[in-house]
Amino acid sequence: MITRMSSLFLRTLREDPADAEVPSHKLLVRAGYVRRVAPGGYSWLPLGLRVLRNIERVVREEMDAMGAQEIQFPALLPKEPYEATNRWTEYGPNLFRLKDRKGGDYLLGPTHEELFTLTVKGEYTSYKDYPVTLYQIQTKYRDEARPRAGILRGREFLMKDSYSFDLTDDGLSESYQKHRAAYIKIFDRLGIEYVICSATSGAMGGSASEEFLAVAATGEDTFVRATDSDYAANVEAVVTQAPPAIPLDGLPEAQVHHTPDTPTIETLVNFLNGADLGRTFTAADTLKNVLLKTRKPGETEWQLVAVGLPGDREVDLKRLEASLEPAEVAILDEADFAKNPFLVKGYIGPKALQDNGVTYLVDPRVVTGTAWVTGADKSDHHVVDLVAGRDFTPDGTIEAAEVREGDPAPDGGGTLVAARGIEIGHIFQLGRKYADAFALDALGPDSKPVRITMGSYGIGVSRLVAVLVEQSHDELGIVWPRGLAPADIHLVIAGKDDTLREGGEKLAADLDAAGLSVLLDDRPASPGVKFKDAELIGVPTIVVVGRGLANGVVEVKDRATGEKTEVAVDEVVAHLTGLVRG
Amino acid sequence: MITRMSSLFLRTLREDPADAEVPSHKLLVRAGYVRRVAPGGYSWLPLGLRVLRNIERVVREEMDAMGAQEIQFPALLPKEPYEATNRWTEYGPNLFRLKDRKGGDYLLGPTHEELFTLTVKGEYTSYKDYPVTLYQIQTKYRDEARPRAGILRGREFLMKDSYSFDLTDDGLSESYQKHRAAYIKIFDRLGIEYVICSATSGAMGGSASEEFLAVAATGEDTFVRATDSDYAANVEAVVTQAPPAIPLDGLPEAQVHHTPDTPTIETLVNFLNGADLGRTFTAADTLKNVLLKTRKPGETEWQLVAVGLPGDREVDLKRLEASLEPAEVAILDEADFAKNPFLVKGYIGPKALQDNGVTYLVDPRVVTGTAWVTGADKSDHHVVDLVAGRDFTPDGTIEAAEVREGDPAPDGGGTLVAARGIEIGHIFQLGRKYADAFALDALGPDSKPVRITMGSYGIGVSRLVAVLVEQSHDELGIVWPRGLAPADIHLVIAGKDDTLREGGEKLAADLDAAGLSVLLDDRPASPGVKFKDAELIGVPTIVVVGRGLANGVVEVKDRATGEKTEVAVDEVVAHLTGLVRG
Repeated sequence: MITRMSSLFLRTLREDPADAEVPSHKLLVRAGYVRRVAPGGYSWLPLGLRVLRNIERVVREEMDAMGAQEIQFPALLPKEPYEATNRWTEYGPNLFRLKDRKGGDYLLGPTHEELFTLTVKGEYTSYKDYPVTLYQIQTKYRDEARPRAGILRGREFLMKDSYSFDLTDDGLSESYQKHRAAYIKIFDRLGIEYVICSATSGAMGGSASEEFLAVAATGEDTFVRATDSDYAANVEAVVTQAPPAIPLDGLPEAQVHHTPDTPTIETLVNFLNGADLGRTFTAADTLKNVLLKTRKPGETEWQLVAVGLPGDREVDLKRLEASLEPAEVAILDEADFAKNPFLVKGYIGPKALQDNGVTYLVDPRVVTGTAWVTGADKSDHHVVDLVAGRDFTPDGTIEAAEVREGDPAPDGGGTLVAARGIEIGHIFQLGRKYADAFALDALGPDSKPVRITMGSYGIGVSRLVAVLVEQSHDELGIVWPRGLAPADIHLVIAGKDDTLREGGEKLAADLDAAGLSVLLDDRPASPGVKFKDAELIGVPTIVVVGRGLANGVVEVKDRATGEKTEVAVDEVVAHLTGLVRG
Repeated sequence: MITRMSSLFLRTLREDPADAEVPSHKLLVRAGYVRRVAPGGYSWLPLGLRVLRNIERVVREEMDAMGAQEIQFPALLPKEPYEATNRWTEYGPNLFRLKDRKGGDYLLGPTHEELFTLTVKGEYTSYKDYPVTLYQIQTKYRDEARPRAGILRGREFLMKDSYSFDLTDDGLSESYQKHRAAYIKIFDRLGIEYVICSATSGAMGGSASEEFLAVAATGEDTFVRATDSDYAANVEAVVTQAPPAIPLDGLPEAQVHHTPDTPTIETLVNFLNGADLGRTFTAADTLKNVLLKTRKPGETEWQLVAVGLPGDREVDLKRLEASLEPAEVAILDEADFAKNPFLVKGYIGPKALQDNGVTYLVDPRVVTGTAWVTGADKSDHHVVDLVAGRDFTPDGTIEAAEVREGDPAPDGGGTLVAARGIEIGHIFQLGRKYADAFALDALGPDSKPVRITMGSYGIGVSRLVAVLVEQSHDELGIVWPRGLAPADIHLVIAGKDDTLREGGEKLAADLDAAGLSVLLDDRPASPGVKFKDAELIGVPTIVVVGRGLANGVVEVKDRATGEKTEVAVDEVVAHLTGLVRG
């Protein structure tokens, strides 16, 4: 295929769009791939649509290869199924809602769990029908509070969503693993640098949820990764490595000290190091007890919970909330303290908590045998050498402390470092939530109903166009990976005389005949303008038909490295075919 | 590709869906191609999606071949451009409107004229940039009052819409003709029986608008076609064939007769034939004068208009309205008659009309020299032998009379017959309406702005799936055209023993290796069930691996004709490849 730039609906821009912050947004607009139509709404111009289709094809091929079956739902959906799962309400302002001419309530689908569940229920009845995995590549709608970064976070976007339906937990696990493998193939084929990030701490028994994050400094998602292994996780999912327990024998006795005016960790450490206790204390030697209240779904009463953690760490509320989910969490107010006079602010210790029935959870680092400085439940008093497992026994552990760069990686792969990424895929063991909502059962071999268990899996297809640019560009423009670029070869006719024009046209025709797609710059513009556009557009191989043609050579330039090679005209088709076909 | 029915997400139904009236709706649901999700909203199951994609591919190939460039807009669009053209209001309840979280007004695009115009304006500035034709294949939304017939008239559907942008009227005409030729190729490739129907009478100078209608008894659109030519037209667009004028010399004088109690054509004809006038009269000899009032856009005053037409024909209000567009038309009320006492109800003639300044338009059959019985502007009186061009001269002609089967075809191709069809394509010379709304100008060679002129062109892509079924099915099920079917071969393993199974599997693998797509019925169901499903699903060639295998033959059945052939196993791949490749 030959695409002539003289008639192509493409105008490149010299200036970055005013609203653009990230490189992919700037470059995709400047190079004429997309145009803004509304907040979070973009049109795809010819070259952009080609890249989108190339990515879509890779996704489809791998989904088909794993045995998933493609179907397609409307985007305009009736309210009722989403009311049945409560998502009509839960989605809040992120859902686009509308009424039809008869006043019926509709929504624009954000994801299609409800419809897939109902459809399977409509077709399948017997255990023999299962397992099945269905997918669609479809336009999705979310009324983002802050659409941003061009097509990275739009309100209308193309997504591949798939759903697995299994009879058993093992089946779900298998479907999940098949998806995981397919996603790895997809993102590898797309040449994306990504990590697979645990999204939950694994409390549900195994990786029930993982995110595929493309590594990008401009990403909205933060995560941690190990210095010496593949380990990566959302901060919420990091499991703290507990040190080994310490034998209790021979540990010094706990002693209460008068520590006036030491309600904070800093004042306490300073006081202790000023007193003559024969050793130096740091914040890490103190046990900070943070009071919270939690409430389970459906309950009205709040319960007190205390979290004990080393004094050098803050509570990470997101981690705390993830640990206590689905319960709500709130900070204590003055009324709570007034109601519970045993809580001596700044001097709270485990004893009063547990004596008064407060659930006491500690950081996993608080193992048996560790000795702490902590509150003595009396104003201006602390206890030193309070030993876990001897002087107090916590009610359990909790992942609530902040994760820091330098913390040991949970898998032993060195230490953790912080990184940023863009979510490109998410795989999730849904379990029976939707099957319960719609009573999706299979008739088992014993004629008893078997409740189906589901997984849901998504890839942000249109977002991937931007992700590729985030990961592959330079100061001149985009550098597309081969196979995803809008053409195989960008062929520049660098001059206006007939010999060059004819030479360029002939080469384009020969490349076309060899099965390569050619973006042919046959415009009357100057060579300088054409070179600049070629760099900006980012086709991986740029061929220049210029002065060298008189000597029987053309220039072949690698967009990524900038390396230029002179190739004889009669060898160039074979040369380029070799490059493209690899 | 081999698709195994043992795992395919497909369940055929024995019963027609309760809400289905037309064959395509019944069969597409029963054969498992589509499922209803909401009124006018359908999901595409695996086989349905394949047919849809096959059709989409044909459309895309021909649009690309004609030089149109594919882009894609969002479906969720801001109000402002549609307010600029007044379509936000004009579309009435057919438009899905919604608000985003900030209260901004949006709509779901019914067609995208506004966006295409704005996009071209955003990219192009010079006359050198033109002409350009852009298209998209995209999901469209219309809140139909009465969604019906499954995917034939849905509220969410797939459409190809394209738009041409030209500097001159000749350019527009050329773009229009290119589209017309591309549409002919597309519908021919799809094997659809269709007519190209004039949608306007050609008053704007040539075929400014044509509809492609698939011939179908279940169609919503009526049209007329010629018995002996390709002529077809909407009833509104039929041009009446005027008979030749008659020399005035020697025609009898007009005579006023007392015709008591003859306010209707029937009473008049009966009276005349009872009186001894020496000849027989029919309704066709009378000239009926129908009074109307019209009002031009923006005016407040109504003007009287009279239409004179042969008494055996009724006024077709649609044709009348189309003729008077863009003026409004209304019937006179009693107050109008009271205000204009010269209008003697039942006895109105041309004289009083023209004497009183009423515009008098006649049917094209009222040519010079034709003699009529008509009102004498006096109660109980008519005039006989009132001759056009002698006794009265109309102010012009109008296409307002009903079109009847048996009327001569305007192109001389025999007579007209009525037919029904389904609109599958529409090509339309828009002119400058949208360019005016958005001031889309090109800078001309003389540096003066040139207002762009546009065409708009649509194909109902998803509707075509149903149209194919309407035109190609029998009492057993669907009969897909080759190339559009969900598979090349439907291969039935007609039995459970290992030999048959192995034979079927081997044949499927061989066909797959030969590049054919195979729908393999490897289910444990009975041969009877499998045959029934094969007929219902409608793949054009059904191959049965059954008892004959022991003798080295399989059965090849043509779905359309029912013809069965025994083919030797070692020849069947070549045989089928020949059938499929044509």
